Amino acid sequence: MNQTIQIALLGAGTVGGGVYKLLEKRRSELPQRVGADIQISAVLVRNVSRPRPGIDPVVLTDDWQSIVRNPDIKIVVELMGGIEPARTYIREALQAGKNVVTANKDLIAEHGAELFDLAEANHCDLQFEAAVAGAIPIIRPLKQCLAGNELTEIMGIVNGTTNYILTRMTQDGMEFDEALAKATELGYAEADPTADIEGYDAGRKVAIMASVGFHSRVRFSDVVCEGITSITATDIRFAREMGCTIKLLGVARNTPDGIEARVHPMLIPQSHPLATVNDAFNAVFVHGDALDDAMFYGRGAGEFPTASAVVGDIIDTCRNLLMGCTARIGCTCFKELPVKPAAEIDSKFFVRMKVDHRLGVLAGVTSVFGNTGVSIAQMVQHQTTDGCAELVVITDAVREKHFDDALTILCSMSMVREICSVIRVY
Amino acid sequence: MNQTIQIALLGAGTVGGGVYKLLEKRRSELPQRVGADIQISAVLVRNVSRPRPGIDPVVLTDDWQSIVRNPDIKIVVELMGGIEPARTYIREALQAGKNVVTANKDLIAEHGAELFDLAEANHCDLQFEAAVAGAIPIIRPLKQCLAGNELTEIMGIVNGTTNYILTRMTQDGMEFDEALAKATELGYAEADPTADIEGYDAGRKVAIMASVGFHSRVRFSDVVCEGITSITATDIRFAREMGCTIKLLGVARNTPDGIEARVHPMLIPQSHPLATVNDAFNAVFVHGDALDDAMFYGRGAGEFPTASAVVGDIIDTCRNLLMGCTARIGCTCFKELPVKPAAEIDSKFFVRMKVDHRLGVLAGVTSVFGNTGVSIAQMVQHQTTDGCAELVVITDAVREKHFDDALTILCSMSMVREICSVIRVY
Repeated sequence: MNQTIQIALLGAGTVGGGVYKLLEKRRSELPQRVGADIQISAVLVRNVSRPRPGIDPVVLTDDWQSIVRNPDIKIVVELMGGIEPARTYIREALQAGKNVVTANKDLIAEHGAELFDLAEANHCDLQFEAAVAGAIPIIRPLKQCLAGNELTEIMGIVNGTTNYILTRMTQDGMEFDEALAKATELGYAEADPTADIEGYDAGRKVAIMASVGFHSRVRFSDVVCEGITSITATDIRFAREMGCTIKLLGVARNTPDGIEARVHPMLIPQSHPLATVNDAFNAVFVHGDALDDAMFYGRGAGEFPTASAVVGDIIDTCRNLLMGCTARIGCTCFKELPVKPAAEIDSKFFVRMKVDHRLGVLAGVTSVFGNTGVSIAQMVQHQTTDGCAELVVITDAVREKHFDDALTILCSMSMVREICSVIRVY
Repeated sequence: MNQTIQIALLGAGTVGGGVYKLLEKRRSELPQRVGADIQISAVLVRNVSRPRPGIDPVVLTDDWQSIVRNPDIKIVVELMGGIEPARTYIREALQAGKNVVTANKDLIAEHGAELFDLAEANHCDLQFEAAVAGAIPIIRPLKQCLAGNELTEIMGIVNGTTNYILTRMTQDGMEFDEALAKATELGYAEADPTADIEGYDAGRKVAIMASVGFHSRVRFSDVVCEGITSITATDIRFAREMGCTIKLLGVARNTPDGIEARVHPMLIPQSHPLATVNDAFNAVFVHGDALDDAMFYGRGAGEFPTASAVVGDIIDTCRNLLMGCTARIGCTCFKELPVKPAAEIDSKFFVRMKVDHRLGVLAGVTSVFGNTGVSIAQMVQHQTTDGCAELVVITDAVREKHFDDALTILCSMSMVREICSVIRVY
């Protein structure tokens, strides 16, 4: 019981600092919680002379080789983010027989297969619970608790920045730019918010969840991403009139003719459990043939929430080390399912457009939908102050390419002044 | 990869049948999902001649000894429920070196410590994910994903029958008896609904979650249970006026002066994530020092949802068998924290009472609260048709024994015609 497991952290930023502090806070109980003490023997940083409050300067190092060559270090915890040098370090750590815990969604979503192969070949753990939805347990539930299910849908709000922005737009009537500025001010959005607001961050998480949940590798490049930059307060108001709220959803579906993987803003009914997930919270909704519906809700980012997931993985790997069973659960992708191209996906659409306010226009617009095979589920017309009519149409489910055909024709018609927005509907 | 792991099911009722069918449905994929095929070699039933659609009659047996003495059976899956003979069978299985998966909340809540000791002594797994909240992954997340946290609160809607009844009372204005009849008609309530409506079923789950989450054994007898039989449609209406909804909550708190463990109806704000958990759904809300708030939502009962959790445990145990690491995570109770007596818990209360409608009554009532140290947070008075006044008071947090003192005095006052209801407030 008095064993000590030595680990190294790569990175001492927000997450690295959080993991360090959380392990220190739990230190006295670790032998009983884990069966061993966990000692942080090294923290890899770029600049060892920079003061890092709360971190013992003795463990700071800028020398990766001193870590990877140290046979006493059994777990490398990669918290640097980005592709390089994280990828090289993780490869070298696994090749040296070290177990790896990482919070790096970019890396797992783009180079997961290669890294899992390497982990398996070296009988090592490669754990990544923190890569998706921060503190929320989702990877381990998918790989273990729900392992008896055929999962058909994994859908979630997995980006806190955009959910904060949409919440402000919904609750306070802000426009996108104002809400983004507020998110930046509060530290929810980074200086360059592109990866968040364009849906790339959520897309990486969708790739990871789909791979784990559907047992078939989905890469980030397979995920169709659309962000929230074109959503307006007007769209949100119309959505509310129709009993819906607008969320940036990552959606992965396991269908008989392939996997659908995409991120886009979506109208969801206000009664759906995901509709009440507000501010910077994340939630993942899962449907399986045995479990039916389930949802996992919590903080998707932040120093300690992310550390919670990372430390959970560290403890799990320690338990495996103590029992001699690292690599107990490796990559679970044993299928090779096709990923559907975007045009082949069926969706419902919300379309808001400005049209001439005169006789025959409604007939003209609806006949375009009819002729292209797009069935209309709901339609609302408002007169606007500029003499136009504002039309909001919600379609039934339609192959996306057929909907695109309808849109192309509508755009070419003189009676259609503007297609203001096109948003998918759950 | 072509290994076969033999298992036995004890019980072929709703859950047993569900587990059998789910394993059969997954059979072709099990070697790749698990690393081995899982073969159901025996299903223990009382009456082998009764036809059981979907179950191969060859595996049916009424002879427990033929199972426990069969060295090829590595996992015993106990799905009979109740204390005996389940307890004896699980003890004998563990003593024979067999791993155990169980869905039996009664047994784990009352005899958990003894069974976990036996599992550890025999290096066996004893898994019980299905004992709490059906399909919802909660035990494994608590033991693994959240293992880095100091958890301070675990609170949930963990009984589907009572949640269905309260949902009907809230949404359709039914009284308790009518809603219970509806639940019975739909098969949500058993012929004898006592364990559900008196809160005992939820209390067992609270005992289990508190034990796992706080690392200290809490027994069912430690849990204060109050059911929903005295809740009326009027209470629910008044609660709604105050922005709240009434739910039967299992609440476990880890406080500096001991563990609080109880089940009772509670007013929670309509904005709380648990407030929107309706019908037969369950949800568990967890607060930890690192993760902050998280919630797990899904189906808490039913043939396949429960089978989902049981099969997840079976697969996990199979993975441990294949890696030679059964008993990898045993009992995690390494503390001996005191459990607070009910009278020492602080609560807020909602009190609805009928009083004389005359001068001085309000002063009389409020002075009783004041003199017993009960501070009033909110008060509403309505005049009723019978000439009385109906008073609704919400108190600030108060030691329960002081509140009881106030109530005793109020009951003895002639101006107080009736204390209609007393419900705790979150």
